[in-house]
Amino acid sequence: MGFRARILGAAAGGGLPQWNCGCQNCRLAREGAIPSLTQSSLAVTANGADWAVLNASPDIRAQLTASRALAPTGLREVPIRSVLLTNGDIDHVAGLLTLREMQPFTLFATAGIHAVLDANPIFAALKPSVVTRSEVALDQPFALAPGLTATLFAVPGKVPLYLEGDTVDTQLLGEQTVGVKLEAGGRTAFYIPGCAALTGDLAQRLDGAAAVFFDGTLWTDDEMLRLGLGSKTGARMGHMSMSGPDGSIAAFAGIDVGQKVYVHMNNTNPVLHPASPERAEAVAAGWIIGADGLEITP
Amino acid sequence: MGFRARILGAAAGGGLPQWNCGCQNCRLAREGAIPSLTQSSLAVTANGADWAVLNASPDIRAQLTASRALAPTGLREVPIRSVLLTNGDIDHVAGLLTLREMQPFTLFATAGIHAVLDANPIFAALKPSVVTRSEVALDQPFALAPGLTATLFAVPGKVPLYLEGDTVDTQLLGEQTVGVKLEAGGRTAFYIPGCAALTGDLAQRLDGAAAVFFDGTLWTDDEMLRLGLGSKTGARMGHMSMSGPDGSIAAFAGIDVGQKVYVHMNNTNPVLHPASPERAEAVAAGWIIGADGLEITP
Repeated sequence: MGFRARILGAAAGGGLPQWNCGCQNCRLAREGAIPSLTQSSLAVTANGADWAVLNASPDIRAQLTASRALAPTGLREVPIRSVLLTNGDIDHVAGLLTLREMQPFTLFATAGIHAVLDANPIFAALKPSVVTRSEVALDQPFALAPGLTATLFAVPGKVPLYLEGDTVDTQLLGEQTVGVKLEAGGRTAFYIPGCAALTGDLAQRLDGAAAVFFDGTLWTDDEMLRLGLGSKTGARMGHMSMSGPDGSIAAFAGIDVGQKVYVHMNNTNPVLHPASPERAEAVAAGWIIGADGLEITP
Repeated sequence: MGFRARILGAAAGGGLPQWNCGCQNCRLAREGAIPSLTQSSLAVTANGADWAVLNASPDIRAQLTASRALAPTGLREVPIRSVLLTNGDIDHVAGLLTLREMQPFTLFATAGIHAVLDANPIFAALKPSVVTRSEVALDQPFALAPGLTATLFAVPGKVPLYLEGDTVDTQLLGEQTVGVKLEAGGRTAFYIPGCAALTGDLAQRLDGAAAVFFDGTLWTDDEMLRLGLGSKTGARMGHMSMSGPDGSIAAFAGIDVGQKVYVHMNNTNPVLHPASPERAEAVAAGWIIGADGLEITP
């Protein structure tokens, strides 16, 4: 068994279908006409036996139930060694509440993200005597699971929605939104589910990677406005789009990456319809459209 | 359409299977040999069009996706008018984080339970300008949804696990654990998913009800200890058991109730196995074993 990544959930916050959404994709998913997707999470292992879960989505119970490799191996033994958070968004932290139950693991995050959790007494459900909180500094490699090294780095983003003040910096570069470099057996992969812009520094960092799991929230920046489903652009939400001259498809065209995989896709994104021209365009550009349960071997 | 209740989730906290549990029931549920159950929640309507959700479980997204009657009726219209909380336990409040998305409804709870939420900034995800917080006094009827009246009353219980101090009163009678009386079209039903003891007062209150949804956490008080799955009795967790001289089966024998339905069942409870003698015994005593999606017309 080598380096292996399993997409636990390929959707952005809200999932597909989203509980209160009647958009075309959500209607089709509710009818079973297109695949449903749970919320944003990736599981990674270097040896097939010890797993790290990157982001704990609200759907984590269903995601783990659907993943035989992550099922308990004994009365109360699980193959999950750690959970890593890339920001404090609800779609990435609410699942921690499901991971109560006196089960030991290490919770990795920047000091900034740990502070967001610590401000909420409800996360005491993960007893400090059972779940070890580990503060990770940016750009410092650490052991995420046996055989698996991770390094966090800042990517342009913003604070979680529920912590936004009157003004919001959507190109914030710090501990609130991070990408993850994963290394195992001489191979390198990146996990970046939220990213407001692909800077030159970031492009250089990604060059030569075996696999990149990247922010696929929206197809176009004004997608939610045009559908009458929100008042915010992708840029305002801290996500770059797939399409257009400033989009991720164009930005990755000049970067040497083995497997490019979109994750964290919003239910409005037309690539979620298997027969859409947008999906065909992304696939033609070399992208894999993430799906729940899809496994990638970097 | 008349008074109608739909069990969204019949399991206690953790669900069936629970992510980290390898007990017999969890193993069988994971293999599909016995029905899986999501976590504790009940939806109620008096007119078939306007629903109230009693407790917001971590599984609420999957529960709503599985419930056609609760699906969106427009681009962003849902038939859910209110959410009511009976305590601050994670299996009853974590689902509120899923109900973000700028969707208006009224959140009913006692002042004590609202205070638990207010202490956690993450619940600001339910913007006060969109989701109306309504503090409900004990023993005061209020309109829960069109045609549906509810009254909260104290039942013996305790504070949420994550707020427990060094000593815990497991027979606390106040705003932290409540039962719900539901009235519609001249019929009365009760929803009591957590209850440490069936007092004489409570028995008197329930007498004559058309339906009671009652705490079915454990079959025997020492069930989790005997299975090696925990260090606590049911009594310590604030739940009376089904069996035995102090159990709910015995306690309800002398109370006149139309339909007695067990909900909030822990994954260790042997009644969750359809072929168990314990289930046969409960059914012989007139009990319905709750299941996800089961509808009861009181």
